[in-house]
Order: sequence, then C-alpha cells, then structure tokens
Amino acid sequence: MIATDKVLLGHGSGGKLSHNLISGLFMKHFSNPFLLKQTDSAVLEFTGGHLSFTTDSFVVDPIFFPGGDIGKLAVCGTVNDLAVSGSSPLYLSAGFIIEEGFPFNELEIIVRSMADEAKKAGVIIVTGDTKVVNRGKCDKVFINTAGIGYIKQENLHIGEGSRIMPGDKIIINGTVGDHGMAVLSARQELNIKSNIASDCASLNGLISHVLDEAGGIRFMRDATRGGLATVMAELAEKKNFGIMVEESVIMVRPDVRAFCELLGFDPLYVANEGKVVMVAEPDSAQKVIQVMKSHELGKDATIIGEISAENPGKAWISTGIGGKRILDMLAGEQLPRIC
Amino acid sequence: MIATDKVLLGHGSGGKLSHNLISGLFMKHFSNPFLLKQTDSAVLEFTGGHLSFTTDSFVVDPIFFPGGDIGKLAVCGTVNDLAVSGSSPLYLSAGFIIEEGFPFNELEIIVRSMADEAKKAGVIIVTGDTKVVNRGKCDKVFINTAGIGYIKQENLHIGEGSRIMPGDKIIINGTVGDHGMAVLSARQELNIKSNIASDCASLNGLISHVLDEAGGIRFMRDATRGGLATVMAELAEKKNFGIMVEESVIMVRPDVRAFCELLGFDPLYVANEGKVVMVAEPDSAQKVIQVMKSHELGKDATIIGEISAENPGKAWISTGIGGKRILDMLAGEQLPRIC
Repeated sequence: MIATDKVLLGHGSGGKLSHNLISGLFMKHFSNPFLLKQTDSAVLEFTGGHLSFTTDSFVVDPIFFPGGDIGKLAVCGTVNDLAVSGSSPLYLSAGFIIEEGFPFNELEIIVRSMADEAKKAGVIIVTGDTKVVNRGKCDKVFINTAGIGYIKQENLHIGEGSRIMPGDKIIINGTVGDHGMAVLSARQELNIKSNIASDCASLNGLISHVLDEAGGIRFMRDATRGGLATVMAELAEKKNFGIMVEESVIMVRPDVRAFCELLGFDPLYVANEGKVVMVAEPDSAQKVIQVMKSHELGKDATIIGEISAENPGKAWISTGIGGKRILDMLAGEQLPRIC
Repeated sequence: MIATDKVLLGHGSGGKLSHNLISGLFMKHFSNPFLLKQTDSAVLEFTGGHLSFTTDSFVVDPIFFPGGDIGKLAVCGTVNDLAVSGSSPLYLSAGFIIEEGFPFNELEIIVRSMADEAKKAGVIIVTGDTKVVNRGKCDKVFINTAGIGYIKQENLHIGEGSRIMPGDKIIINGTVGDHGMAVLSARQELNIKSNIASDCASLNGLISHVLDEAGGIRFMRDATRGGLATVMAELAEKKNFGIMVEESVIMVRPDVRAFCELLGFDPLYVANEGKVVMVAEPDSAQKVIQVMKSHELGKDATIIGEISAENPGKAWISTGIGGKRILDMLAGEQLPRIC
C-alpha cells in the first residue's frame, strides 16, 4: 500500500498517506480490536480500583543496538515503569515523531519489535499518533509510549516505598551497566567492537512472579537513566533511613567493566533497561532471591545491601578494601540519549 | 534552583539537574498530589466502567503563535480527542523532548501555558518525562501528551459513530481554518502580518454542555490536521451513507479566506484546534445549535450539511452555484508541522 520506500511529510498529514501508513504498517503489526475502530481514543473497560499511568519518550542513539532497538525499548521502558509501581501493565499508547526521509524498512523493523515485545509482555498498543518533521528537524525517529496498568489493593504502596524499614534488604536481579555500554558500543564514531548486549527486557513477568510467590516487597524501581547508584541516592534522599550497599557483590560483566574503565564510566551510574531494584523485608529476602532465580530474568539475583538506621538521607557503598563512599546523584550527563 | 538560563543535556540525565528541572519548573506549575509523590507511575482511582485513552505528539512550528503555543496546544489537543470520544477528560501525561540550549524562560512560558490550560479544562497532569537531545537533533521542543477520560455508559458509542442515520444533521461550532493560518502567519520566513489567532481551545466544556443539555448526538470529531474536509471524507469512507455539506454556510473569517487564497490553500483542509464536528439526529439539531450558541466556544454554531442515503462512502460539497464536488482526503501534506 505504501508506494515509497521513505517516510514523507505527507505521512504525518492526516490525509491519504497517513491512512496508508496506519493501515499498511501500524495495523499490520499492532492489529487489535481497539486500534481497528480507528477512533480518536481507545475505549477500555475496567472493573474499578486503582490504575497506574506513566509516560516515557525514547530518543536513543543509535536506534538499533545489540540486544534491542528503540521500538523494543519503548515498550519495555513503559511496561517496567508500570510494573515497578506494583501494577500489571495492560495498555500502551505509541506516539511517533519521524524525520522526513526515514526508511520504511527500518520503521517496519521498529514497529515489529514493538509488536513482538508487547505480545511478550502481555500489553496491547491501543492508540497512537504519527508526526513527520522536515529532514534535519529530529534525529531519525523518537517514540513516546504512555501506559496504563492495574494495581491490586495489596500492592498499592510499592511504588512509593513508604513502608521501608531499617534492616530491609536491597536486591537486584542481575548485572549492571549492560544497556548503556551496549548502546555506546553501537555508536559508530567510537569504532569499538564488543559482545555487550543490552539487558532491555519487560520485567512485569519477573515482578509479578516475585509478588505472587515470595511477597514481602516494600519498594521497587527499575534502574534506568543514572543507573543503580541514582536509584539508591533517590531512595535515601530526604528519608529517615540510610542505605548501605556492598560493591563487591554487585555483578558487572567483565567486558562491561573493561569498557567502562576504558571510557572513564562508573558502571553503577550506567543505564540498565532490564534491572529492577527491590527492597524486601528481612525475613522474605532469601525467598525473594530463590523465586527470582527461578525466572529467566532473575537468574543472577543478589542481595546487594540493606536499609540502615544510620546516615539518614544518604546512600553509601562499601568499596571492599574497608573504605566507603557516598552514592550521590550525578550533577550532569554521563551518557546522553541512552534511552 | 536552576543556575543556567538554557537547557543542558544534563537536564535529561535523571541526575541532579533533572531533579532541579522537575522541582524548579514542572512541580512549580503542575503541582498536584500525584506528581508530588515522584513515583514511576501515577496511581489513579476509578469506580469502574469505561475509560478513553489517547495520545498525541506536538511538533508545531513555530512553538509560539497568535492564540497559543505548543504547550496550550498539547493540552487542548489531547483533551479534545478525549472529549469527542464522549468522555470527560481527567488525567494527562506530558513527555518533553527538548533541544540542548533551549532557553529556560521559553520553556517556563510553555509549561505555564500547559498548567493554565489544564486548569481551565479541569484535567490534571499526573505524570511526565523529559529527554534532552543534542543541539540540532530536534527543533526546540516537542511535547507528547497522553490522556485518560471517563465515559458515561450513554456516550459509549459517540466516538465510533455507529448509530449515524441518513437525515442526521452535521454541525460545527464556528469558523474553519483559523489555527492553520495563524501558525502559518507566525512563520518568520513568510514575513506576513495578520490578525488571525488560532482557535486553540479545550472543547470538553462545550461538548459536555451539549451532551447534557441537548442530547441526540450520534458522532463527534475534532477537525484538526486535514481540516473539516478530512473529517467528512473519513466519516463517509466505507460507510453505507453519504455526506452532503453546503459550502455557503461554512464560516471562514475574511482574513483567513484572503490568506488562503493568497497561498493557494482550501480553508476546508486547513487545521483547526477548537472546532468539533457533531452529527445530531434531525429532531435534536436545532436544540444542539441553541445549546451550543449559549456557550462561549459555540457562538457561531451552524448546521452545515446532512447525512444522506445517496452516494454511500462519499462526502460531497455543494458549491453554491449549483455545482458540487467530492471532499476527498488530501494525498500529501498541505502544511507540515501545524500541530
């Protein structure tokens, strides 16, 4: 139906070319009864209770990287933001801003990635929008996804962490720094070859597995921009507890560590896209680890630290040789356009 | 709290500068209990029933134009998409993609516009995201808004138009072409002075007024990209009815008409941002007009045509001198980046 191999300004016009784009590409891959109605809004039915609602724009550069692409990332990112709020992700919106001249075959790969990942995560893309801007006015393609999830009553406070207590254990489901270093290694200007793949994954399956089978979770957050260190610093900030994590038990792939050292990055500050930090009550922590390890995305789950009554408002890391340092938020930008 | 007058890459990092941006700008203007929690997702309570969910990205150029700016537009656009689905708009998300170096004072004007318009429309901006891309990788600022509305049972089919019948009247709440020509006249390269202001407005107040006081509405759509003509062509497409509108009764401001003639545009295809097309059952049409006229945004409400059993699938316009022509969707793009 699309008689050109590149995206034209007219594909964002709302006219015939827009219709061709919708029916020939988006409907083909995202097809579901909500989108088929082609109404201005999707109509969704709920039984009542609490919903979570979130949004994220994705501007990753490059748009294709080992382990994923901007489409997969756009689905995983919003699914994960919903999941760490204690909700089951249900519906996504997708807003595309595309540069005039962007190749259709690349757009189709991205849209197919979104459809595949949505299917995997069990969410439905129910509404969307496409804008096309003149050549040079954006960089290839940006994608916004917003999402709606359903929160069971018992998980209502997990996103806030208002029930965290000293002695609670801090858990992460695996290695840190993979996503950031995978994207960076894919940037042509660096001309570096590596085997690092992004950890980009929808975590809702792992998270619901832990909530259902283990319990005792008092807080969750995905460690994206700013990495594990920023989650720790944010969590401690302005609270009446401190955080102490143990550097030696935080897993970093050797190639990620080597790449970080080469470029002067701290892997604790590098973005992940498939890592969730959980705070669990002390008695549940071992069970959480055991349940996590039984899931594909939690095989490397580790207790990395605990909530402490000391040093309220601060996150500390013990550096293995008896020393410790503060995990503060970065002032500036370590890696622009990592997600 | 912001020690620079321009947006830096670090403002999109998730670190300290991001926090300053959120607390110093977004919280200041959007402040509400949902945002204050600073969780990954907003937690919303519903009693059950049907919700509408929609998304739109805004890339208008220029970002400031007579009658509005990209911020006001981003709120109105999504509010209107929800409202024409028969729902009461409740919650919005806001995703910003900002070019490095964009002036903070302009960003603050835009954010304030969003806050003002949200207040006016009675919606709450409950979740957001900010990305900053390197200079030259986007054009100043793009904004995505997604929105959630609540649909009363009796309005559930209004967005679909599945109940439209021959004889139904087609109504619009005023002049066409204002938004497109206002934006175009603001483009510096044209160097044209005009008094045309965008009709950019949140239509949910007018729409609920009509639904509550008049009734008999079988379909609604806002006439944005592609203008009134595209709404008519889309509505008729693949249906077992035709559409006949009367050109002479469609109101176009004289300066909009003159500007369109000068530049070779058809005002029926020019974008509006404060115009809703309604299809009303014949017995209700006069009451709808009367109720619309009692609202500030419906003062110029007019019956412009009707649903016909003839020419199924086609929208026709009678041209006043006994002739008629088909209103088809445009093949390409008349005005890029109009919203």
